[in-house]
Formats: sequence, structure tokens, C-alpha cells
Amino acid sequence: MRAAVMRDHRIVPDTVPDPEPGNGQVLVKTLACGICGSDLHAVQHTEKLAEAARESGAPFVMDPKRDVVLGHEFCAEVVDFGPNTLRNLKPGDRVCSIPILFHPGGVAPLGFSNDFPGGYGELMVLSEPMLLPVPNGLGTEQAALTEPMAVGVHAVAKGNPTKNDAFLVVGCGPVGLAVIAGLKLLDLGPIVASDFSPRRRALAEQLGADVVVDPAREKAIDAWQKAAGAKSALIFECVGVPGVIEQIMRDAPRGARIVVAGVCMEADSIQPMIGINKELSLQFVIGYTPEEFASALRALAEGRSPADPLLTGKVGVGGVADAFEALADPEAHAKILIEPWRD
Amino acid sequence: MRAAVMRDHRIVPDTVPDPEPGNGQVLVKTLACGICGSDLHAVQHTEKLAEAARESGAPFVMDPKRDVVLGHEFCAEVVDFGPNTLRNLKPGDRVCSIPILFHPGGVAPLGFSNDFPGGYGELMVLSEPMLLPVPNGLGTEQAALTEPMAVGVHAVAKGNPTKNDAFLVVGCGPVGLAVIAGLKLLDLGPIVASDFSPRRRALAEQLGADVVVDPAREKAIDAWQKAAGAKSALIFECVGVPGVIEQIMRDAPRGARIVVAGVCMEADSIQPMIGINKELSLQFVIGYTPEEFASALRALAEGRSPADPLLTGKVGVGGVADAFEALADPEAHAKILIEPWRD
Repeated sequence: MRAAVMRDHRIVPDTVPDPEPGNGQVLVKTLACGICGSDLHAVQHTEKLAEAARESGAPFVMDPKRDVVLGHEFCAEVVDFGPNTLRNLKPGDRVCSIPILFHPGGVAPLGFSNDFPGGYGELMVLSEPMLLPVPNGLGTEQAALTEPMAVGVHAVAKGNPTKNDAFLVVGCGPVGLAVIAGLKLLDLGPIVASDFSPRRRALAEQLGADVVVDPAREKAIDAWQKAAGAKSALIFECVGVPGVIEQIMRDAPRGARIVVAGVCMEADSIQPMIGINKELSLQFVIGYTPEEFASALRALAEGRSPADPLLTGKVGVGGVADAFEALADPEAHAKILIEPWRD
Repeated sequence: MRAAVMRDHRIVPDTVPDPEPGNGQVLVKTLACGICGSDLHAVQHTEKLAEAARESGAPFVMDPKRDVVLGHEFCAEVVDFGPNTLRNLKPGDRVCSIPILFHPGGVAPLGFSNDFPGGYGELMVLSEPMLLPVPNGLGTEQAALTEPMAVGVHAVAKGNPTKNDAFLVVGCGPVGLAVIAGLKLLDLGPIVASDFSPRRRALAEQLGADVVVDPAREKAIDAWQKAAGAKSALIFECVGVPGVIEQIMRDAPRGARIVVAGVCMEADSIQPMIGINKELSLQFVIGYTPEEFASALRALAEGRSPADPLLTGKVGVGGVADAFEALADPEAHAKILIEPWRD
């Protein structure tokens, strides 16, 4: 099959072997797969990502020296069934799945596995029990946003938000936008969102931020303070570059809870005394539960997540490398989908 | 009056003006005052402490260039009353107080104020509404442990501990020991405590740790794992030197909550990816509420905090500088009390 392959810190179109569905697995055709910020990280920092996974005791660690077909934000179509499958779905049915594959050797993280291709290729194998049918009426492209939206649902849940909180979302890339969507699903606010990019601020407004702020013109925390009244601070760090956690800790009011959802691959420096004097908390988050994933799909299907503004581009396998370049410019794109079946 | 004065990064015995009780204030004689690790920090890092307070938006920031009479862990005796006092207590009554003084200019942190002396001097003024009488039968020296014990009660409370948690206390100086005491007050366990010092490990056992571990011989987290069974990890960082938070994050199991109670005055480095991959949380803590302070005094009076092992030395004003030296050796002392009335 055709696939965009991660190889030696580049993305190259190539032909790779078709995956074959094993016990309990389903062969699917990738209809659309989003490019995630962590895919960009993976290409740039392959060794660091593997090292961090190893240090965190992850059950699977990719080998940076071997090819990986990335892609964990997908909507797919059932093609064929492996042995020992229930086959409640039919070929042609559209499905989403958390990007975890069960196989005889254990579990594989689809999109970060050397052995099983992710959604940057024409075909994948998925675990049948993890399949969620895409409800009729929900577009394939919107369904492909389930995974990033689930990240927001999860980050919000880990912050234990209440009606007594006012929210600050620092960084309005896909993670920050998903956090805004997650807060709106719970009807929480006010939401103040901060980003240097006008395009991203506009997206933040479309997704439901009550106030958007350009940190070049006004400190995000000042805008938050105006909107918050007497409410407590729940702050989402959605930037993921060194120094941002520290800056948020400096700016945060006493007792603030900070959810770290931005993926920072570098060592970072903090001043513990700032945290101590203000009794701040940092909750690091990643991923989502299967329930959160399913609820994100449901919210999209019910039109409760206004996700359309996120969809800003589509490419085939040959266009992925250029799409990676384009995503470096926050003005150009939010989410680019790969359609591996194209051309 | 005689006082041990912090001046230019040293402690010197000197004579300073007697404080005079203002509106709502009570003049007290210091019976005993503990030397706290943050006092050692204050002498060594006076400017940094002031800078951190300023950066945290503290309502009071001491001037490193002016004298400070340290001492915030005290038991005192009522001597006289200022104007507008209720006088429910009588001269000679023993009292404790949270080390916060209300005065016409605002609030002063007793023990870190240029304007109001702390317990390293013979006399202090306290705010009458904050006074807690020492229950009959509780020794003055034990009552002087109320403040450090309250720190443990608070750190434990901020960790939201449950019966489903197993506890790891990293560092068994006064803060770690107070955390152990705070956990025991709630009848929680198992408690695994780690320190390089044999003396401190012995104290940890006396205060109720179920398992003590010498990290030079066994990784603390391994000892914790053996004791924890299927329980969740609630880890208390009670060391306060750079690198410890990072090490705990590396060692911690997935989902661990880490309470940062050690006071690190330096910039510190963390690897956010470790926190993210394991969804760790860091809760920074300081101080206590008035209720927690009162409950610590009550626990001591009821004999529920076995604090006696902590009391390892007593000095007069002239002995404070040497006591500071002695406290650098974990084998020599846990808590040294100053009795400023002694020659």
C-alpha cells in the first residue's frame, strides 16, 4: 500500500506491505487522518520521544531507527475481518477507534509503532472491540477530529473544573482549541484564550472562547482577571515549549490549578518557590479514556462541538511532507487531514 | 531585650528595642521557639527569599538589608495587653499563635518581619484574636512544635489522601517527620519514609513510618512498591534541593500525586514529558490554615502526635549561631529550641 513513512527525521511517500488482520482484528481503509502536533514532534525528536517513553515505563517504545507510519487521528472504513471476530459491523461501515491495537505481543500504539501502520497509510488493522461506528450524518472529516477532541475532553476532566472556576487557555493550537471545546461541552466559563496568532485567536472565538487575548498586547492573566471576578483559576498550558510552565506559574494567582497539556520535549526550568508561595498545582495530562473518546465522537455527531473551523486543509500521501512544513505557520492551518487514498 | 538577630547573612546576639503592644495586641514572653529549616534558608538566601516573596505577590516582603528577629515556631506567656483587647487570658497564661500579626499597616509575618520581632527574642507582640491557650498538661516545649506539626497536617490535607493510597515521604527532616505525624493522625498507611541519615530514619520510625529506607541501599520507590500492593501513590517531597522533584517524577508510578513540601530556593529542572506520559501531578504547599494550626496543637495536647523524639536540643540567645551550624548535620539534631530568657 501507499503510505507517508517517517524515516530518519523526514516524511517520505513510499510503498509498504499491506497489514493483515490477525485474531480479533479488522482490516480498514483509512478515509481521513489528522496530522497531530505530536507527529511533528515525533519526526523532529524521534529519539527523545522514544527515550521519554522508555523513562516513563511505557509498555511500548518505538525504535527510532526503523520506519514508522504515523497517524493516530483517523476515520476509517471496514474492509475485511480477521479470524475470531464478531463481525457486527459490515464492510463499508465507517469507524473510529482509540489508536491502540491489541495483538499477540501485547498492545501497540497505532501511529507510533514500527510494526503496525497508522493512518498515514491506505490500510490499517484495528482491534474489533475498540471500533466505534461513526453515526450517520457525521462527516468523515469531522469524525477524524474525534481523537484531538478527546484530548481536550480529558484535559478538562483532569482539571476537575467547577462552576466556581474561570479558565485561561494558554496557546490555541489544536490542543488549546480542543480544551476550549471540552470546556464548552460542560457549559463552563468564562474562558479566556491567549495566542500570538490572529488566526488561532479567531478559531478560539469560533470554538467558544469568551475572551481572546494577544499576549503581545496584554498579559493573558490580566485579561483573565478582568473576566474572572471572584472565581478560581484553572489554567491550561497548551503551548509545550520550555519556559511556558514557569511563566504561567509566575503569573498565576494564589491557589491556581495548572493543567499541563502542551507536550514539551525539552528539559524545562521552574522556580519551586513560586509554586510553594502560591500553593500552585501542576497536573500533567496525556491522552484520554475510552469513555472520553466515545463521548467526544458523540459530541461531534450531535453537533455540540463546532469542529468545522478546525478543518483547514487536505492532502494525499505525497503532500504530507509539505503539510508538515505548512503547519509550522500558525496563520496557515489548524488541522490538515491526510486522505491516503487520494491520487 | 536580648535577641538573636539576623544581620547580613549571620545570626548575632544583640540588644534590640522591646516591642510594644498596639491595638488588639498582646505582649508575650517567648518561652521556647524552634529553629526551622526556613530560618536556615533565610540566613543563607535572604535576598532570594525576599525576591521569591515579591514575585509571588506576597503582601509583605522583608528588606534583606535590615535586621530581622527570626522565629515563627513559638510557645509564649502572656505579659501585658495593648489597648482594645478583650483580656480573656491572664498574664502568665501560656499561648501559641499562628505567626501572623495584624497591625495598622496590614499583616506582618512574625519571624520574617523587619518591624516586629519573632521568637528569637525575649518578647513579642501577638494579635489577641489569634492566641490559642496551651492546654494544661501539654509541655511548653511540645507546644512549641505546634507550628511545624501544622505544616505536616496541611501538606497531608493538600494531598487529599485516602485509604486507597500508600505514602512515600522523601526526606525525613522536620517537614518529612511532620508529614509522617500528619498521616498517622488520620490513621493512614502504609507510610514508607526515605532518608540517607540513620538518625532521621530512626525518628521517622518513632513518629510512625511503617517502613524506612536508606536510599543509598535501596531505591525508595522499590521499598514503596513492596509495601503499597495495589494502592495509589501519594508522594511527599520533603527535601527541597534542586533535582529531587525531577528524580521523584522519574521514579513515580503512573498517576502518582506528588506534594512538594520541601522548600527549594533554587531554580529547578524538570522533564515535562515524564510528567505527561505518567499523568503526574505536583501540588506545591506552604503553611497551614488557622484550623489546621489549632488541630495540630490539639493533637499534641491529646498525645496523638509523638513529638518528643523531635526535641533534641535547647540553647539561649547566645547559642543560636552554633545551633544553626549543628543543624547542618542530620545526625546531630532534629529540632533545637531557643529559650531567649536563658542567659
